[in-house]
Amino acid sequence: MQRFPSSLMSGYRNFMSGRYSAESERYRVLAETGQKPQTLVIACCDSRAAPETIFDAGPGELFVMRNVANMVPPYEPDGQYHATSAALEFAVQSLRVKDIVVMGHGRCGGIKAALDPDAEPLSPGDFIGKWMGLLKPAAEQIQSNDMLTASERQTALERVSIRNSLDNLRTFPCVKILEEKGKLQLHGAWFDISTGELWVMDAKSRDFIRPPLE
Amino acid sequence: MQRFPSSLMSGYRNFMSGRYSAESERYRVLAETGQKPQTLVIACCDSRAAPETIFDAGPGELFVMRNVANMVPPYEPDGQYHATSAALEFAVQSLRVKDIVVMGHGRCGGIKAALDPDAEPLSPGDFIGKWMGLLKPAAEQIQSNDMLTASERQTALERVSIRNSLDNLRTFPCVKILEEKGKLQLHGAWFDISTGELWVMDAKSRDFIRPPLE
Amino acid sequence: MQRFPSSLMSGYRNFMSGRYSAESERYRVLAETGQKPQTLVIACCDSRAAPETIFDAGPGELFVMRNVANMVPPYEPDGQYHATSAALEFAVQSLRVKDIVVMGHGRCGGIKAALDPDAEPLSPGDFIGKWMGLLKPAAEQIQSNDMLTASERQTALERVSIRNSLDNLRTFPCVKILEEKGKLQLHGAWFDISTGELWVMDAKSRDFIRPPLE
Amino acid sequence: MQRFPSSLMSGYRNFMSGRYSAESERYRVLAETGQKPQTLVIACCDSRAAPETIFDAGPGELFVMRNVANMVPPYEPDGQYHATSAALEFAVQSLRVKDIVVMGHGRCGGIKAALDPDAEPLSPGDFIGKWMGLLKPAAEQIQSNDMLTASERQTALERVSIRNSLDNLRTFPCVKILEEKGKLQLHGAWFDISTGELWVMDAKSRDFIRPPLE
Repeated sequence: MQRFPSSLMSGYRNFMSGRYSAESERYRVLAETGQKPQTLVIACCDSRAAPETIFDAGPGELFVMRNVANMVPPYEPDGQYHATSAALEFAVQSLRVKDIVVMGHGRCGGIKAALDPDAEPLSPGDFIGKWMGLLKPAAEQIQSNDMLTASERQTALERVSIRNSLDNLRTFPCVKILEEKGKLQLHGAWFDISTGELWVMDAKSRDFIRPPLE
Repeated sequence: MQRFPSSLMSGYRNFMSGRYSAESERYRVLAETGQKPQTLVIACCDSRAAPETIFDAGPGELFVMRNVANMVPPYEPDGQYHATSAALEFAVQSLRVKDIVVMGHGRCGGIKAALDPDAEPLSPGDFIGKWMGLLKPAAEQIQSNDMLTASERQTALERVSIRNSLDNLRTFPCVKILEEKGKLQLHGAWFDISTGELWVMDAKSRDFIRPPLE
Repeated sequence: MQRFPSSLMSGYRNFMSGRYSAESERYRVLAETGQKPQTLVIACCDSRAAPETIFDAGPGELFVMRNVANMVPPYEPDGQYHATSAALEFAVQSLRVKDIVVMGHGRCGGIKAALDPDAEPLSPGDFIGKWMGLLKPAAEQIQSNDMLTASERQTALERVSIRNSLDNLRTFPCVKILEEKGKLQLHGAWFDISTGELWVMDAKSRDFIRPPLE
Repeated sequence: MQRFPSSLMSGYRNFMSGRYSAESERYRVLAETGQKPQTLVIACCDSRAAPETIFDAGPGELFVMRNVANMVPPYEPDGQYHATSAALEFAVQSLRVKDIVVMGHGRCGGIKAALDPDAEPLSPGDFIGKWMGLLKPAAEQIQSNDMLTASERQTALERVSIRNSLDNLRTFPCVKILEEKGKLQLHGAWFDISTGELWVMDAKSRDFIRPPLE
């Protein structure tokens, strides 16, 4: 008979005997009063870059939307299902978050696929192909640049993807208006899985720099 | 000048001095060899129900897709952008995950909105309204049952949403085929934020039961 | 020749050598001075859910009325025989109980019958059919919800039946008046045969929650 | 705020730490496989005469119907709500019990009321008056017998009530037929609260005698 993954069950036991038993009161209160996160994090599904881990976040702190390559499609009020736009709308309009962080990371599989000229569809639906198509113009420009090494092209597109998501966020009227009013701030960040370094985007120059840790 | 959220920066410092310094070798290896997660978790964006926290998961263990109300739309190879379908395709076809867990939770804001007959669009685009529309038939049936309390209706729809996502997962040919071949298993789980209880769906009856912790 | 069930006789011998011999004085006093129970329990006939067992109650503590599915019909002063109304009247007006507990339980056969669309009368008199008819409107609403599993529908109706009995209790003038005067309290409880859990109804929300055991 | 009776909660804690923890497996099995009691006990609501206590019965052993003065009304297939007939039908036709025990007891308040010529209705509905009316002819005969002491009259009517219930049980076709086929046995018993004595009715003479305990 089918069994729930044992690794998850043992992890859950650790959670119950550890974090939950230590913070049960906090969980009870969060259940009663509801969540009031200050921050929306738009991150990648990658198993090596969980926002709660990297930002050592506790329950109630981060509202987290995760898709392949931490992307935000442009504003399209077309009546279709938009997972990303729905999460964004809920975070901004209902939860009234104060900050939105788009967090990318190194060695991103989605970005790698976007840069692979010989990439085959993974399935007849080719959903990844369509999804990464959001980065097509940028990907083609970078692909064609034979001055950069493969890994430089990869890092370049990972960061372009973050800036691209930030630009698309601003195509949502509610985001644009609240940011102009100073009630909402947008941020970019890039996590290096290998070294654990966090690179933060400078709002003005849009360069990624390593902030001092102290 | 705009500053990166200080709570996130201090959390990141804890990560670097704590988990990362303890597991830096593991991160380095994961960066070199790439991720090989066994499990895809489809979860909600809720700040109180992070899969990595509840399953005490380390880097590389869980490929996590998060949207409002942990939903999976039905298979629609229509050339649109599908964040969820793309993540699913990548996890199943490229990463070859062995298990998919759809994890819902109590007090879900998206589910609450779906059950609110007087819910106003949060913005002109009404992205949440459209997104939760995936549960419309179920929501209407449950809404109309005035014998149940508000919280009983909420819990019922939260669990229906999980079963609904599992059904939709099976509309994806790659999922259906691999499950039939026994190479992929689908699971449902429901997390009670207040008590920390994890309820797991029985594959046969589709009921949610609390597995023994020993 | 007909013999009294031997299992009952041997159980009675245990009672005499055990509880009775230990509490004979208490029994003698209770016989002399009469019973003064504080609580009326309205429970189901089910062999797995005896109130005295679940509440570890001694002689004189609980006045117990038991019928199928722990139901209370609405106030009907029509001169017919009303087993339930008679027991209620005696407990409230003559014994002056302070609390009334309506206790339902999981896997209730009466509730199961009420939810079975193909249920045949058990006998020409169809007494169960008529009796469970007290829940007909609720049963039909819940029956029609094909989004819920069979056991979810069962649990839902078991709890609706408790709330229904509490509502009907308040159609009895003596109950209504004494409750308003604060001299009588009504409670709902649901017992899970499998896990032994007792769920208590919150008077305000009417939800069933597990009270802390400490 | 309203609280569940503390005496019941502490009793429940005893149950969980005592009987349930000792018999949890039995409870789990009884929940899975359903109840299969051999015996239906028709008893009084009296707080001093709980069948499970007197027969030291465990979970799953006794299907127990309790009303005031352990009465069974005659067979009336009239479409009204009949709590007692419904429980009887369920026990005999669905659970297929092998024995039915009608258990009365001393100092029965219902019987006392039936014998009190000056008894006032307890409420405008006079449900007890109507209910005890089932014993009116017998009560009047015994009342008028001034050769008997008050307590002799009480005991006499308590036993008449048991025989009366046994007679009425046989007006139910299903009971009559199964008894004639030897598949169902009917028994009478009377419990003396003060001495703890159990008197069993002899099927032939219908006298109540004390069976040897060895």
